[in-house]
Amino acid sequence: MARVVVDVMPKPEILDPQGQAVARALPRLGFDGVSDVRQGKHFELEVDDSVDDETLAKIAEGFLSNPVVEDFVVRRVQS
Amino acid sequence: MARVVVDVMPKPEILDPQGQAVARALPRLGFDGVSDVRQGKHFELEVDDSVDDETLAKIAEGFLSNPVVEDFVVRRVQS
Repeated sequence: MARVVVDVMPKPEILDPQGQAVARALPRLGFDGVSDVRQGKHFELEVDDSVDDETLAKIAEGFLSNPVVEDFVVRRVQS
Repeated sequence: MARVVVDVMPKPEILDPQGQAVARALPRLGFDGVSDVRQGKHFELEVDDSVDDETLAKIAEGFLSNPVVEDFVVRRVQS
């Protein structure tokens, strides 16, 4: 078994209202020095060693993200 | 400036219906070998170098996660 992490983020040209709301709120709450916040999704998958990188990319692209508005990164963190 | 990543995941004892839905759907869609999926949040922050780790932990605990049901990990990826 391997643990696979998939991080899904809005593409740079896509507005991210949730992230912007956090970034705007922090100074009001007393936390300065954070100039940008982007919010995405983080998936942790338990995967058989037989599952190859191409299959993982298909899963990430088809079922964990929306490729029109999101980018994803797949990485194996443990095997 | 430094880039800081905060990953927020449901605690292990918390049910994760979104992750379970993906895990159950994958075999139906022709993808075998994925035994578990957990879904959380992934934040990317642009942070002044003056912001210390204690402040980042306060931001993550107070505003990016719900510490009752979620765990978080903070890491600096670039400085």
